Amino acid sequence: MAEKYEYEYFNVTFPAEYVAHVEINRPEKLNAFVEKMWLNLSAIFRRLSHDPNVRAVVLTGAGERAFTAGLDVKAASEGILSRDSQDPARTANAIRRHILEFQNCITDVEKCEKPTIVVLHNISYGLALDLSLACDIRLSTTNTAFSVKEVDIGLAADIGTLSRLPHSVSSLSWAKDVCLTARIFSSDEALRVGLVSGVYADKTEAVQEGLKLAGEIAKKSPVATMGTKEILNYSRDRTVEDGLRYTAVWNAAMVQTRDVKDAMLSGLQRKMPNFSKL
Amino acid sequence: MAEKYEYEYFNVTFPAEYVAHVEINRPEKLNAFVEKMWLNLSAIFRRLSHDPNVRAVVLTGAGERAFTAGLDVKAASEGILSRDSQDPARTANAIRRHILEFQNCITDVEKCEKPTIVVLHNISYGLALDLSLACDIRLSTTNTAFSVKEVDIGLAADIGTLSRLPHSVSSLSWAKDVCLTARIFSSDEALRVGLVSGVYADKTEAVQEGLKLAGEIAKKSPVATMGTKEILNYSRDRTVEDGLRYTAVWNAAMVQTRDVKDAMLSGLQRKMPNFSKL
Amino acid sequence: MAEKYEYEYFNVTFPAEYVAHVEINRPEKLNAFVEKMWLNLSAIFRRLSHDPNVRAVVLTGAGERAFTAGLDVKAASEGILSRDSQDPARTANAIRRHILEFQNCITDVEKCEKPTIVVLHNISYGLALDLSLACDIRLSTTNTAFSVKEVDIGLAADIGTLSRLPHSVSSLSWAKDVCLTARIFSSDEALRVGLVSGVYADKTEAVQEGLKLAGEIAKKSPVATMGTKEILNYSRDRTVEDGLRYTAVWNAAMVQTRDVKDAMLSGLQRKMPNFSKL
Amino acid sequence: MAEKYEYEYFNVTFPAEYVAHVEINRPEKLNAFVEKMWLNLSAIFRRLSHDPNVRAVVLTGAGERAFTAGLDVKAASEGILSRDSQDPARTANAIRRHILEFQNCITDVEKCEKPTIVVLHNISYGLALDLSLACDIRLSTTNTAFSVKEVDIGLAADIGTLSRLPHSVSSLSWAKDVCLTARIFSSDEALRVGLVSGVYADKTEAVQEGLKLAGEIAKKSPVATMGTKEILNYSRDRTVEDGLRYTAVWNAAMVQTRDVKDAMLSGLQRKMPNFSKL
Amino acid sequence: MAEKYEYEYFNVTFPAEYVAHVEINRPEKLNAFVEKMWLNLSAIFRRLSHDPNVRAVVLTGAGERAFTAGLDVKAASEGILSRDSQDPARTANAIRRHILEFQNCITDVEKCEKPTIVVLHNISYGLALDLSLACDIRLSTTNTAFSVKEVDIGLAADIGTLSRLPHSVSSLSWAKDVCLTARIFSSDEALRVGLVSGVYADKTEAVQEGLKLAGEIAKKSPVATMGTKEILNYSRDRTVEDGLRYTAVWNAAMVQTRDVKDAMLSGLQRKMPNFSKL
Amino acid sequence: MAEKYEYEYFNVTFPAEYVAHVEINRPEKLNAFVEKMWLNLSAIFRRLSHDPNVRAVVLTGAGERAFTAGLDVKAASEGILSRDSQDPARTANAIRRHILEFQNCITDVEKCEKPTIVVLHNISYGLALDLSLACDIRLSTTNTAFSVKEVDIGLAADIGTLSRLPHSVSSLSWAKDVCLTARIFSSDEALRVGLVSGVYADKTEAVQEGLKLAGEIAKKSPVATMGTKEILNYSRDRTVEDGLRYTAVWNAAMVQTRDVKDAMLSGLQRKMPNFSKL
Repeated sequence: MAEKYEYEYFNVTFPAEYVAHVEINRPEKLNAFVEKMWLNLSAIFRRLSHDPNVRAVVLTGAGERAFTAGLDVKAASEGILSRDSQDPARTANAIRRHILEFQNCITDVEKCEKPTIVVLHNISYGLALDLSLACDIRLSTTNTAFSVKEVDIGLAADIGTLSRLPHSVSSLSWAKDVCLTARIFSSDEALRVGLVSGVYADKTEAVQEGLKLAGEIAKKSPVATMGTKEILNYSRDRTVEDGLRYTAVWNAAMVQTRDVKDAMLSGLQRKMPNFSKL
Repeated sequence: MAEKYEYEYFNVTFPAEYVAHVEINRPEKLNAFVEKMWLNLSAIFRRLSHDPNVRAVVLTGAGERAFTAGLDVKAASEGILSRDSQDPARTANAIRRHILEFQNCITDVEKCEKPTIVVLHNISYGLALDLSLACDIRLSTTNTAFSVKEVDIGLAADIGTLSRLPHSVSSLSWAKDVCLTARIFSSDEALRVGLVSGVYADKTEAVQEGLKLAGEIAKKSPVATMGTKEILNYSRDRTVEDGLRYTAVWNAAMVQTRDVKDAMLSGLQRKMPNFSKL
Repeated sequence: MAEKYEYEYFNVTFPAEYVAHVEINRPEKLNAFVEKMWLNLSAIFRRLSHDPNVRAVVLTGAGERAFTAGLDVKAASEGILSRDSQDPARTANAIRRHILEFQNCITDVEKCEKPTIVVLHNISYGLALDLSLACDIRLSTTNTAFSVKEVDIGLAADIGTLSRLPHSVSSLSWAKDVCLTARIFSSDEALRVGLVSGVYADKTEAVQEGLKLAGEIAKKSPVATMGTKEILNYSRDRTVEDGLRYTAVWNAAMVQTRDVKDAMLSGLQRKMPNFSKL
Repeated sequence: MAEKYEYEYFNVTFPAEYVAHVEINRPEKLNAFVEKMWLNLSAIFRRLSHDPNVRAVVLTGAGERAFTAGLDVKAASEGILSRDSQDPARTANAIRRHILEFQNCITDVEKCEKPTIVVLHNISYGLALDLSLACDIRLSTTNTAFSVKEVDIGLAADIGTLSRLPHSVSSLSWAKDVCLTARIFSSDEALRVGLVSGVYADKTEAVQEGLKLAGEIAKKSPVATMGTKEILNYSRDRTVEDGLRYTAVWNAAMVQTRDVKDAMLSGLQRKMPNFSKL
Repeated sequence: MAEKYEYEYFNVTFPAEYVAHVEINRPEKLNAFVEKMWLNLSAIFRRLSHDPNVRAVVLTGAGERAFTAGLDVKAASEGILSRDSQDPARTANAIRRHILEFQNCITDVEKCEKPTIVVLHNISYGLALDLSLACDIRLSTTNTAFSVKEVDIGLAADIGTLSRLPHSVSSLSWAKDVCLTARIFSSDEALRVGLVSGVYADKTEAVQEGLKLAGEIAKKSPVATMGTKEILNYSRDRTVEDGLRYTAVWNAAMVQTRDVKDAMLSGLQRKMPNFSKL
Repeated sequence: MAEKYEYEYFNVTFPAEYVAHVEINRPEKLNAFVEKMWLNLSAIFRRLSHDPNVRAVVLTGAGERAFTAGLDVKAASEGILSRDSQDPARTANAIRRHILEFQNCITDVEKCEKPTIVVLHNISYGLALDLSLACDIRLSTTNTAFSVKEVDIGLAADIGTLSRLPHSVSSLSWAKDVCLTARIFSSDEALRVGLVSGVYADKTEAVQEGLKLAGEIAKKSPVATMGTKEILNYSRDRTVEDGLRYTAVWNAAMVQTRDVKDAMLSGLQRKMPNFSKL
């Protein structure tokens, strides 16, 4: 049997067949992130990406008060920013290395081959956005309080929010508004601009819906859902021409899967297909 | 006089001056597509693109039950997928050629120089999305049932939906939801995320509105509408800088048209300008 | 003391600390633009961009009747279009130079390092869209009448609307509808598709809200807001990968600002930080 | 048996197994191109691309005097340029359609799945460059006279030379020199800047070498040579990152070919592998 | 008559019809650049770009000792680098503004619509490369001493060398070698890698050849040479597909020039065509 | 003191201050690569990238017979290719994961912040090219035998050669020739097309020259050489416009280094500057 997923700040469980549930578990600190947490997060999603027993992932935060309050600023301020170099260029390079490493950890969530659903509840600040924008489907609750918090600590958000937001929502005017003011906004607003695609009464219900959605995706051919995610992400960033060319090469191999036959047959026989592991 | 537009599976009519109406005509099979149909579709739109008597095109599906149910899976499964090659690479290349050819046919709709309006009613599955995303303006009816159906047959959609959807709607979260689950969604949802820009009571009304809209566009300078379409499609996929540079070169020639003088004069005289053929 | 901002067709005032208010001032002509105006506009925003006393800019139109009715077509038709060259290629190049120069003036608004908020009221046609799409945040009023007017004078819009609109709103179908028909649309519609992010009862209220929003942004670290704007604009046009890489290099220098320490400290002490000039 | 390749202005022969030889055959006019010729060229290379009996193609010109003198200017001047439209914009669009169609025909040579070798001898002007830059490997003779001739007839070359040359040779300074002056240059110079990769004593020898090279390529796995060509062309135009990603997807299918096993085994057994048809 | 070209550090003369000669004129300082010089350079090339009496430009350095020794480091070190800000981020932004302005001045040479030929003689260090890489054709002399000098003063070259060199020469290995070592290299080497396309015995001869080449280009249709330069520069940076599309739109207008007819006719009549001004 | 660099198949030594020498050490197998080797290679270069005691790296192969004969085909064929999956799509995905991981290891050499010099001697096949194209400067010896070997085993090269070669050498025709034929070519040819920038009599001399070159680079400001490498690699793949913009942001921080002052001062004082560690 495979090694268990045991990480200090995360609970990883498997509530249904082919469904993984990753829970940020530092509720006493509003799930705020210290460096070890993003390293763990990266390790978890890299494993899930290739784990044949996983076909969909749900990401949530432990406790009632926060999905995550973002970066643990106190810890951070004791780290990189406190370093004392005499040379602004050398300091700049140390910071650049640090940002790139941090970005890569969050991008590992996006690179996970399996679709990911994130549930944002209550406090969802700063890194909450960076992280959830690297997920595929975003759900929230009536009490979610979103904020692209970084300008309030003198920073432009640098772990992914500013790079992914313009490709993810409906209104560039709105995106600039929330990024420049750091104001808190609600699920109503998030739904209206398409940041989230579902809002639920409370965390319990939202997580249930997230797991249900994951369960549905997990019943599909894993070859089909992996390809759908990959091509959508590829195309988000590129011309339609390049998207089509990439798709043709991708499907040249993937269409050969037996899952097509199995899926069609199951459709005719009105029974559930049983796809082999990926 | 020009040759008539006669194609086995399509009705092509000209209900108003400079307006063409293309109707998918295989209602007994829910307008499902066999290979000959996309070859015909391509031929029709390539002709319309250069036809001086056409300035706007409306695309609809015959019958009440469906715009199109998508690919005729039964026919398809007897074709490419059934081929028996011993070598996965050679099979892959045969599939790649087939996908590229199929994509090119649908892209011919996007390349049509004249603006295209599509009306999606009732069943609008799979290829219905690929096809309508290659049109310029999408309208639907209160009974339209949309679905990005492909994952249900073990596939990532490969004829254009995954490449065009992220550039066409408001919410990447929503786009991934409907592509990964293949769930059926309604016109309400389609309107909310901007997939369609108008919803009408029934097919009759929607087609009337489509034709009316086409009629309005057909009254404009064909030089102006062609350029507007071309530059919007070009810019969708590129940086603003590149969009501006392309626009400047495009309009360097196009602004010289007499239509500008005619349009201005007509505006002052409050009469309809009469633009020459393109 | 610095030289005053005095321009024939614009009022530039400083209603609050670090806030500039630029008003298009040709109300007797519905603020329609003649060439001198876009040259002035460019000069103003290039100055504001580097002015250490400015951290946010509000752009409005004087009078009740119009933000701007767009290009002063009468003046324009006496200019470039009336020129009589015997050679279409030489005419084309003269037009190209003219368009590029005009585009560059409007792009200078986008390039302004400081966030810009535009308030569109009543008549907002043609150039109103080009110009406001180069601003960061768009607000409007219940009586705003928007129109991408260009096709009605035989033209594809060439000063930026067609290049920026597909990256700014939720629905490509809607964008093509309004660009191809030149129809007038309301603030309701503009809000629904995300073209504007706030609609107010009348011009007075909208301008007040714009100034209030500018005031809030002006209280943030100017290093943080400049970076946020720069990275959002950069990322709008590029892959997520390239956006992240650029962000890391940008913040390598910018994170070293004392504003981070000041902002954090002020947060703890619940007092207003006092950032030095940029 | 397959239909023969019969085209008015081209000889197509099969001098060795899996090798096609395409000869431009209008020697009495120095192989100058009329419209029918590029339509034929396109048709030939689209067939060769999918012809399982072809693995490499050699392109040459009949007669001793010229590979091709380029466009048949006399015929061309009776065509598109002579048309008399009153409207520069409509004329512009007619020209644009014509150029795009012409470009597409030449690009069909580049899109041919099978590697192509071109032999340029004696007069090789204008279209000779457009055409040979769409081939994979360029050979020439000691008497080849190259010229990017277009500026001498008042034109910027528009069928591909200016788009492909900067990606194909060593020196942008040299490329601009020959394109701006239209001067005739020799094989020595062409070899030095990498425009050609082999120069031979005379046409007979060069064609023999071209056929020999084609013969060698034709002995390789057609899966391997097709992929090599495809990925090199893709990567020429894109970032290394995108090239690598495309390569990984491409080879995911192609590495599964039995040709790998056959090639390895043949290597060990020092005999010629016998790859099945593509 | 037009205003004369009078600039403190530059001589601008017109040695032949349609040919401009720009000479860097600070020989007592080895033509090293102070800020005013690049501002002047930009002003000169922006004027030449639109000057109907100019069709080709030659750029040289006054005196025997140097084309240019590069940036006047002494002057520079008294400028931007000496500024004393307490905040590394604010300093960074001041530097960024300065670099962008400087880059834009050099890029104005590249943007000049008319082809430019540069003659590098003797000392050609640092900015000599940035500047000459923004020109179209590079010539040198047997005594030219090239060096990408910047690493020797602790810098990565930032005014264009590192961005343009990889697209301009034959060998990325060589480009990295000379940029990383700052070693001096000769014209032999520059010719071998394609950095220059001609080497002459001494400055007098090289300038004569530069003027002769400019004279030849100036005899061509200015519509044709402008388009050739524009499309080569556009294509250098983009995919072949995008290059072809841009070319088709460009030539849609430009092919309509009477120069085509004039050039063809002159060719038949073996006399010099007389193209009208651009 | 730092942990030593100890890896089974590599010798890592420090022959001069700030210079690292990495030697592939499997001479009994012609330095052919097994999987552990590219994992080790990646680990080594990721460490060197951040090692403050390293400013330049030389990569060579142990023994006289080969730099590397490429992939250890025997080991490889027992690995990934031998796996027996019934489903071509699942096999494809396993292969894709494997290729991406392998590519990433080689790309880690390119990502190393410090300049890298590779010396290719004698047998340099297949992976030898992939690997050396990820280095900055390539040197070889009179007996180097290069070959892009992959088509001979039925494959398109997939670890980087096909993506990097078109951006690294002078002649696309030559690049296609050697990739399509897998023929062995010599250092003469490699030098002519710019694949290598120096050829030496034998391995001893070449390694000495490589170390000498590394020594010279190691004496420069590490801030300057890191930036030079970074910007050249960035610009190789992008438009000049994007290259310039990135450069300005990069240098905004890096120009603030004290190395600039130190380098200038040392230049004046004609002594060696002593830069602090990076």
